[in-house]
Amino acid sequence: MSNLCSFRTVFKVGGDVMGRVPAGVRALVFDTWGTVVDWRSSILDELGELCDRKSLDLDRERFLNDWSAAYKPGKEKVNNGQWPWTQVSEIYWCALRGLLPKYTALRELTDSELEHLNRAWTRTRPWRDSVQGLTRLKRKYVISTLSNGDFAWLVGIAKFAGLPFDCIITAENARRYKPEPAAYLTAVQLLGCSTNQVMMVAAHNYDLRAARELGMQTAFIPRPSEFGPDQTSDLCAEESWDIVARDLEDLAAQMGA
Amino acid sequence: MSNLCSFRTVFKVGGDVMGRVPAGVRALVFDTWGTVVDWRSSILDELGELCDRKSLDLDRERFLNDWSAAYKPGKEKVNNGQWPWTQVSEIYWCALRGLLPKYTALRELTDSELEHLNRAWTRTRPWRDSVQGLTRLKRKYVISTLSNGDFAWLVGIAKFAGLPFDCIITAENARRYKPEPAAYLTAVQLLGCSTNQVMMVAAHNYDLRAARELGMQTAFIPRPSEFGPDQTSDLCAEESWDIVARDLEDLAAQMGA
Repeated sequence: MSNLCSFRTVFKVGGDVMGRVPAGVRALVFDTWGTVVDWRSSILDELGELCDRKSLDLDRERFLNDWSAAYKPGKEKVNNGQWPWTQVSEIYWCALRGLLPKYTALRELTDSELEHLNRAWTRTRPWRDSVQGLTRLKRKYVISTLSNGDFAWLVGIAKFAGLPFDCIITAENARRYKPEPAAYLTAVQLLGCSTNQVMMVAAHNYDLRAARELGMQTAFIPRPSEFGPDQTSDLCAEESWDIVARDLEDLAAQMGA
Repeated sequence: MSNLCSFRTVFKVGGDVMGRVPAGVRALVFDTWGTVVDWRSSILDELGELCDRKSLDLDRERFLNDWSAAYKPGKEKVNNGQWPWTQVSEIYWCALRGLLPKYTALRELTDSELEHLNRAWTRTRPWRDSVQGLTRLKRKYVISTLSNGDFAWLVGIAKFAGLPFDCIITAENARRYKPEPAAYLTAVQLLGCSTNQVMMVAAHNYDLRAARELGMQTAFIPRPSEFGPDQTSDLCAEESWDIVARDLEDLAAQMGA
């Protein structure tokens, strides 16, 4: 991890430690998987319980790596026109079916059990700071999701994790996935704001790059264990985002909330 | 008011007093102005404060009747294709400007004061039972708005009135106004449900008629003072809706929440 990634440095990158609140922000929109909820450890735990209950012999980590890897090429096929609009739930469902020959233990499951497993993406725990950070931010700002997940799945995640979002907005509202401009601009329009009145909050630099390109404000939160102990990407802010915060509580503090 | 409109009768129309919960409902979607918030008395109060503060001589009730009357022809012009998609905020804004020659007192206001007045539609108090009823229903069901208002306005209403909706869905998501099918079907699709898994809740029979036509379940809540003491419409259930409840707390009770 380079020096840029130490929290002390990251914190300085975010501006004055005493907190200069970026001007004009009315709404914050949050990437959700990774940024607000810890999908990986939640799904690994659920797989562990499933394997215990059904006595399945499954390499959970290897399976989840393979399964989650279906997301990026799937959304890219939608964005480049190879596929018509396809929800993330369907991308994961097809990937899960496609992995059955490789992970034969999962062939013990009925279709209905597989469908339940697919929805594990909605039964994800918040990071320790998420609920409190969002609760503080909600007092001063409109807070919304801006995820690539299905609208219904994001409603489910917010309910499961007790996330107090004012509203749910996802790529489904635009039928285009981030980082396509339409995904962000649809959110900005629904919120009745101009782009510079909306701050994108994400643990992923690519997401903030696309948002900044459109004139949105940006906040980076490192989630260095989102992808497990060997994570190599997004360990730190790769540009001088408007805010770089340790977590969502720190973001609330820096945003004066 | 016909006998059908007495609460005792209405309550019976709703089925067993002990409450047979309609099967298969996963989500309830709520008309908002009138059904959940008391827009008329809220805006009259705000007009009263404005007139006192600025010493304006305005017939508030007559003005609000004229202003609110712009909604129906406006949405109809959108639905029949005479107008391109036009938000309710703009329908009311144009109507407000159009009423300035008739209500000369309002010509004392600056543009920014008029814009603030236009947003009075978002500063509306919940009916006494709304927050508690929604809070109970939220424990068991997904609860969403399904209003003809701007998405951003509904976010504002929910924040102002403390309405604990899981998500906000409005006609803006479909760019068609209720009672056009697309407004309802877009909501059903976003919620990841089939039509009969979603219950439309409204104080307006026309809204439930359109929802039932599409296979949605229906709940009627009378709001006999929505339009003031002389209200003549929607005083009672005009069809045997799946649920007829006194208010949102009674709806929660009948829905087993």
